[in-house]
Amino acid sequence: MEDKNLNENLEDVEELLDTVDTEGKCADESTEESSENIKEMLSKKEAECEEYLDLLKRTKAEYDNFRKRTQKEKEGLFDEGFRTSIEKIIPVLDNLERALEHSDEEGALKEGLEMILKMFKDILEKEGVSLIPSKGEKFDPNLHNAVMHIDDDAYGDNEVVEVLLEGYTYKDKVIRHSMVKVAN
Amino acid sequence: MEDKNLNENLEDVEELLDTVDTEGKCADESTEESSENIKEMLSKKEAECEEYLDLLKRTKAEYDNFRKRTQKEKEGLFDEGFRTSIEKIIPVLDNLERALEHSDEEGALKEGLEMILKMFKDILEKEGVSLIPSKGEKFDPNLHNAVMHIDDDAYGDNEVVEVLLEGYTYKDKVIRHSMVKVAN
Repeated sequence: MEDKNLNENLEDVEELLDTVDTEGKCADESTEESSENIKEMLSKKEAECEEYLDLLKRTKAEYDNFRKRTQKEKEGLFDEGFRTSIEKIIPVLDNLERALEHSDEEGALKEGLEMILKMFKDILEKEGVSLIPSKGEKFDPNLHNAVMHIDDDAYGDNEVVEVLLEGYTYKDKVIRHSMVKVAN
Repeated sequence: MEDKNLNENLEDVEELLDTVDTEGKCADESTEESSENIKEMLSKKEAECEEYLDLLKRTKAEYDNFRKRTQKEKEGLFDEGFRTSIEKIIPVLDNLERALEHSDEEGALKEGLEMILKMFKDILEKEGVSLIPSKGEKFDPNLHNAVMHIDDDAYGDNEVVEVLLEGYTYKDKVIRHSMVKVAN
């Protein structure tokens, strides 16, 4: 809606400027005019003035709004690109973790893999990607996605008892909710 | 420089609007005026009109420029965020590749790792991240970073004979140059 007003306003300005260009500037070429004529011209000029001033105010206000809005949008866009990329790549991290968890082999490959996994997590953390605290926390629908449920008095109300898939945030925005099992 | 003009212009508009607000709208409250006075008022009004129109034109032109420039900047920002993220994470890919290359162990872990590596590369490719063609290509300083050199007639002039570290592009912009050995 804001954009519509903006465009309408700019169209008004275009039209006005077109009119001025074709009609030539004001009625400056007056020779000798009667007092009545001059009064009439003054009255027209005043109306023209009002119109320009009104458009000038509106154009300026919309320009200001546009600049403010744009600045906010720009700040968000870089982060959105960054977040989108992490979202695509997180499954690689999931699979590396799973491969290590499920392997009972020992050797240089496993050791190397553990180092790579640590490096991966360190990079993410340094760039502002955080693991969502889940296990033992109170269930929070903004961060957790409850996919299983148990009744067990050993746990508190709505306590997250198991994490099926880790979730992550980037600069306080959720990249992916953690998938959890919730008690009671 | 553009921004300076823009700000100056907006300051002009601010000043002008301030003047109007404090002085009140035009000299509309004229009672009976002499013909001379009216002529003078008309002349002032005409000057005022010109000033508004001039500012209106300039404000509109700068607004238009700002909108065009902003649109381009916004398009680039998402990609820049995406590219920055990939740049940080690429070393994880390097290390996974190295770990696999150097390992002579066989087993489920290695097989799993090979699948994860393939998945990683597939995700990157799908998202627009491409491996820079290097080995066998003619050296291109826009894509390759020559860190070693050999003289060997078995190769062509400036042929890349070995890749020490793979390079990547995202949407035709280099994320990282490939580090190469160049012949002749």
